[in-house]
Amino acid sequence: MTAPLIDNLQYCNWSPEIFRQLRAGGVDAVHVTIAYHESFREMVLNLERWNLWFEAHGDLIFKGVSAADVTRAQETGRTAVFFGFQTPNPIEDDIGLVEIVHQLGVRFMQLTYNNQSLLATGCYEAEDTGLTRMGRQVVAEMNRVGLVIDMSHSAERSTLEAIEVSSRPIAITHANPHWWHPALRNKSDTVLKALTARGGMLGFSLYPHHLQGGSDCTLESFCAMVADAAGRYGAGSLGIGSDLCQDQPDSVVEWMRVGRWSKQMDYGEGSADAPGFPPMPHWFRDNRDWTNIRGGLERVGFSSAEVDGLMGGNWMRFYDEGFGPP
Amino acid sequence: MTAPLIDNLQYCNWSPEIFRQLRAGGVDAVHVTIAYHESFREMVLNLERWNLWFEAHGDLIFKGVSAADVTRAQETGRTAVFFGFQTPNPIEDDIGLVEIVHQLGVRFMQLTYNNQSLLATGCYEAEDTGLTRMGRQVVAEMNRVGLVIDMSHSAERSTLEAIEVSSRPIAITHANPHWWHPALRNKSDTVLKALTARGGMLGFSLYPHHLQGGSDCTLESFCAMVADAAGRYGAGSLGIGSDLCQDQPDSVVEWMRVGRWSKQMDYGEGSADAPGFPPMPHWFRDNRDWTNIRGGLERVGFSSAEVDGLMGGNWMRFYDEGFGPP
Repeated sequence: MTAPLIDNLQYCNWSPEIFRQLRAGGVDAVHVTIAYHESFREMVLNLERWNLWFEAHGDLIFKGVSAADVTRAQETGRTAVFFGFQTPNPIEDDIGLVEIVHQLGVRFMQLTYNNQSLLATGCYEAEDTGLTRMGRQVVAEMNRVGLVIDMSHSAERSTLEAIEVSSRPIAITHANPHWWHPALRNKSDTVLKALTARGGMLGFSLYPHHLQGGSDCTLESFCAMVADAAGRYGAGSLGIGSDLCQDQPDSVVEWMRVGRWSKQMDYGEGSADAPGFPPMPHWFRDNRDWTNIRGGLERVGFSSAEVDGLMGGNWMRFYDEGFGPP
Repeated sequence: MTAPLIDNLQYCNWSPEIFRQLRAGGVDAVHVTIAYHESFREMVLNLERWNLWFEAHGDLIFKGVSAADVTRAQETGRTAVFFGFQTPNPIEDDIGLVEIVHQLGVRFMQLTYNNQSLLATGCYEAEDTGLTRMGRQVVAEMNRVGLVIDMSHSAERSTLEAIEVSSRPIAITHANPHWWHPALRNKSDTVLKALTARGGMLGFSLYPHHLQGGSDCTLESFCAMVADAAGRYGAGSLGIGSDLCQDQPDSVVEWMRVGRWSKQMDYGEGSADAPGFPPMPHWFRDNRDWTNIRGGLERVGFSSAEVDGLMGGNWMRFYDEGFGPP
């Protein structure tokens, strides 16, 4: 079996057309966000919507829960869809829900989105107090059942503490190095060194606010950054988490940013002048453009085995080690 | 592997002591009620409690989801615990929750308890209008995912319609023939013939209100009834669903009977004079008494193979055929 193509973060406005684009682009597995600020019950409604899609489009997609499902996707010419949360809201204040959501197939959970959560501090807060009392308990429970800790939106200290406290490697599913593009959401060299030293994975984001030059970022600049990161952290700890938010109306980015926590608009990485989703770079408009990235990585000097790892093999290994009991 | 011992309905006040009694009695699998009138979210709290028990007592019990888990229980000297609901309340008014609860491991669901539900009519209602519009949709969805329809508490017409409309065999997990003991909860010959003619299973109840003579019912009378039923319906369609409610306080039988649907007490099969759980017959006090039943069945003339079927082999076959997609 050839190395799989895995995108470890998308949040599209899903449709049969996008499922067909996943197949056209040869995507074997995709980690999709199924909840931001949803309560447990609201998140279950999102699971139900996915069950309807799996039933209606079983020729294109199916629910993935283990690394073996990525192989099954390759063997059957379909895309395995893995679930994750971008906030811990769906587990509410109830640690027992960690195992319940794992039983429902969820495999990634961010300890915070941009704000303080019950578990840790988000990257937009003025002060970062690290993991909370509940946060430490939930990290241990996530370790026990095999729910991967994702710190993509978390603040520096919280992220370092999660890396240290977790008994298993964690992930930053979608962010880039701060040294390449100093956005608030991108990660410091300190964090990325600690993450990868403990076996954790970084998924490079293709979301324009995380890119040097934004929507005008060149493929060459992106791939040179990946090469630089590979030199610092090792190519085996790196993959892609594109953060593709295809076909989403601007109301969705408002939900992501504001949820129900504020009566005022918060523009997050956007602004009043540019409140919506920014246009994707021309070399990655949708799932049919993965060959561009592969080509760019080949041209920047990676070996064929390294490119295979970056395009999905590394996530595959991480799935294999991360998605069940230790 | 010898034939398994399966009790297809218990609702005990679970404790490590009862788990040890399950092992002492050689029970390989037990179907336990995890919800009566609970909402979905409340039912999930019950699942969480079971997860804590599985974690703490994994040497005695584990969660069962397939017939193969019964074999695994036999091989590892533990008891596989299968989940069921006695009302459809946990799926609320949301057909998408059928698949969700199946994904969470639930394998049996009654379409009604004693009252009219959104799906069908319970045996205590004055009029029985059969399956509702939603009931027919939910039967088809339960058939699709492999969630077994249980009509133990349902009224006659509703039960006959469920048997007819369901594309797969259904179960009456805990009841006895009305011709042996004419309790409202026991089932007519018409129902039992229709049930078993379509491959369905009857689990004989040991709950005193379902027994001829109540708590004083003799083992000989019970086993003679089983032999009579085997003559009418075939021994292969019969098993046990003891309805053992060990160590439950009387507040629990109140919850079972009244839930939140009435401000007045409803005594169900009890009465103002005897509102609580009745004492079990002396030959089946708890899970250590299964040898009494086996002995009684042997003495009433069943072959060894028939006894093996009645004590669990028949449920094992039903589990194998019923718990997944068709």
